[in-house]
Amino acid sequence: MSQITPRPGRIQRAPEGFLSPEQIREVSAGRRDFLRTAFASASMAVAGTSVARAADGDPAILTLPEHSTTLGRPVAERPYGAPSQFEAGLRRRESPGLTRVAGSSVSFSPLQGLFGIITPSGLHFERHHQGWHDIDPARHRLMINGLVKEARVYTMDDLMRLPSVSRIHFIECGANTGMEWGNVAVPTVQYSHGMLSCSEFTGVPLSVLLDDCGIDRKRAKFVLAEGADGSSMTRTISLDRALDDVLVAWGQNGEMLRPENGYPLRLVVPGVQGVSWVKWLRRIEVGDQPWATKDEAVHYIDLMPDGTHRQYTSIQECKSVITTPSGGQTLLDKGFHNITGLAWSGRGKVKRVDVSADGGRNWRTARLETPVLSKALTRFNIDWVWDGSPAILQSRAIDETGYVQPTYAQLRAVRGTRSIYHNNAIQSWKLADSGDVSNVQVF
Amino acid sequence: MSQITPRPGRIQRAPEGFLSPEQIREVSAGRRDFLRTAFASASMAVAGTSVARAADGDPAILTLPEHSTTLGRPVAERPYGAPSQFEAGLRRRESPGLTRVAGSSVSFSPLQGLFGIITPSGLHFERHHQGWHDIDPARHRLMINGLVKEARVYTMDDLMRLPSVSRIHFIECGANTGMEWGNVAVPTVQYSHGMLSCSEFTGVPLSVLLDDCGIDRKRAKFVLAEGADGSSMTRTISLDRALDDVLVAWGQNGEMLRPENGYPLRLVVPGVQGVSWVKWLRRIEVGDQPWATKDEAVHYIDLMPDGTHRQYTSIQECKSVITTPSGGQTLLDKGFHNITGLAWSGRGKVKRVDVSADGGRNWRTARLETPVLSKALTRFNIDWVWDGSPAILQSRAIDETGYVQPTYAQLRAVRGTRSIYHNNAIQSWKLADSGDVSNVQVF
Repeated sequence: MSQITPRPGRIQRAPEGFLSPEQIREVSAGRRDFLRTAFASASMAVAGTSVARAADGDPAILTLPEHSTTLGRPVAERPYGAPSQFEAGLRRRESPGLTRVAGSSVSFSPLQGLFGIITPSGLHFERHHQGWHDIDPARHRLMINGLVKEARVYTMDDLMRLPSVSRIHFIECGANTGMEWGNVAVPTVQYSHGMLSCSEFTGVPLSVLLDDCGIDRKRAKFVLAEGADGSSMTRTISLDRALDDVLVAWGQNGEMLRPENGYPLRLVVPGVQGVSWVKWLRRIEVGDQPWATKDEAVHYIDLMPDGTHRQYTSIQECKSVITTPSGGQTLLDKGFHNITGLAWSGRGKVKRVDVSADGGRNWRTARLETPVLSKALTRFNIDWVWDGSPAILQSRAIDETGYVQPTYAQLRAVRGTRSIYHNNAIQSWKLADSGDVSNVQVF
Repeated sequence: MSQITPRPGRIQRAPEGFLSPEQIREVSAGRRDFLRTAFASASMAVAGTSVARAADGDPAILTLPEHSTTLGRPVAERPYGAPSQFEAGLRRRESPGLTRVAGSSVSFSPLQGLFGIITPSGLHFERHHQGWHDIDPARHRLMINGLVKEARVYTMDDLMRLPSVSRIHFIECGANTGMEWGNVAVPTVQYSHGMLSCSEFTGVPLSVLLDDCGIDRKRAKFVLAEGADGSSMTRTISLDRALDDVLVAWGQNGEMLRPENGYPLRLVVPGVQGVSWVKWLRRIEVGDQPWATKDEAVHYIDLMPDGTHRQYTSIQECKSVITTPSGGQTLLDKGFHNITGLAWSGRGKVKRVDVSADGGRNWRTARLETPVLSKALTRFNIDWVWDGSPAILQSRAIDETGYVQPTYAQLRAVRGTRSIYHNNAIQSWKLADSGDVSNVQVF
């Protein structure tokens, strides 16, 4: 067997929860010592064909770890699995104080520690208006009424025998990245962009149900979706969209929806802001004009520079963000790093993602992971060698319509500075020579 | 508002865990009465715009359910989410007695209750040889040695800064559907086909690591993958394949691998039987001939009709199965039903799936849900109207190479009847006029 040579400069920043608290303290206290120790133990760990020894003991003692010499735990010990104990730090996090009660607040997805395009359902972001419930599906009903030949009430059993489809789509809250409008650079990508998730949804096309009820095609122009929670959550959707790709969904990532995501039934409105994806869906009304409900007349509106309100916006425009390296992470050494992130567009597929390491002066095109799907997250990766000097990392997405994700200067020229919602500007992460990454706004 | 008319004949069979135990007893005791009650209560439940009342009370009392009038539970109450309490029946299940100890056994995925193509990681099937462990990633190492210029040891941090890719692939145990070789018609699709899952995996291509170590391209012909558990799990993989699409993966469905699936590192060998996807991966050795380890010389071999053993089979041939309706389920009434299932091929994409309701005499082509990906599960759906008479439901997949999934007669003509592994024959579900579905072998 060849000699194993320690290779300094190969330590990567780790996702949250990856290092133990002691190791984080070690890194904080004396980073380079920690690195030397880690590499020394790794390089010393070779004994015969086994490298699986603990890294913290006496490097001279070459023993196999317990898991290589014992019978482990039985199958089905956990009939429903869970993440490793070492991943406990990777969790949804609330931003306390954002709302008066936690039942009407937000928890953010930990994008900095996620891979690929599928969001694990356990880490899907939450935005409730009146808290969440675990509704008995045997008692849940969906009514379709209004401008239809025959109003109908469906049980879950009724719905689940109908023709179903499965599609992968992103969902983004209209208020995602909202704090940045007010120049509040929240510290991590979890808090800046974490009202974003992507799942495979299964359900019956809304068009099938509207056909089943005999929609009045002469008069019908809009539908209203209503949730069963106590918030009177109601949103108007144009009939054209309702008949296009909207689903009445029960499945998410292969299983039934989770209670926090609308179990047993939610609307899936691809490309449109999350508030329209009504959870705990109990009613669809067909009408001839928008309803101007509180969540479309008072909330989820944009205050424009001329003092008018932009209402009934819905499509989430093309946007992207680098998730690693991102705010709060630390590059432990210079050298090669894989830069990775997410891009998406409510108007279709992402065509290209460019990445800059110098605040937008020079751009290189990233690799897009396949499949690249319409109205779904797209994962990008790009090789980068860090020379150890300060840098500003940005990503810029372009969708298949040719729309280019704007800078803050470009977005504000049109939208002003008073909005909360629908911020899709280019995100900047500042990398200091210490390796620390922080959120910074570049105009 | 229109009058709601009760519509008999719309009750769907439900996924496991969907009906409450009382309701299952009601169905068993007097099915038609149960249906009438369910529809009467649904149709009576319309009051104003709300249909969300309990279905079991006095139909004259129209009250909103508690969840429509109260503040629900707060965000981040569960920092890592879980399924609804009503889905507790949907779980991995062991087949007790299959092996001497549960640490070297199997738990099966509940395919009958899953949707789309992504398997929730919590319901991913398990097959361990020496039990599972939750290994500390900070102490885990991967060594690459053998016919390389420089043998190397990688920490998880080393690996995770390298160029990564994300891809969706199925994994199927070579012994999946193994009991059927011996004419044991196990009762449900969970037990007949449930050693099958599909996930989005993220990792570094093995080719990158082999390049990094300077593989000896003149002499190298094979690699050996070794796991860190106590089972000495080792499998030979041809170098061509290793340099093609094999990944050293840490990510599964957006998060780190689960402990039962090899956390923190497993090999992903697209299209190849699960045993080669070595979990808790600690070593890759490069060599010039196969190693003939116990799990390739003694196990995972096929006894052929002429008495010889077929060794080193690896690719999972094209296969499909209807998951609903399937064994153990009951169609509660005739009329329209969505037939759904899964198809896959270790050689590439599924091109077409045909479905028969008369035991293979007549076939209709099913709809394939997009995306259809190479070496990934493909979900198919097809409309069907059941006239109430007995039927035999089958699916037959064809992959992009033109290979057609065989009947049992075709498979046995080549392979005989003494195998356990690599059964990809057409599955038949018998539907009785009672609506009960059971496993039946059709030759």
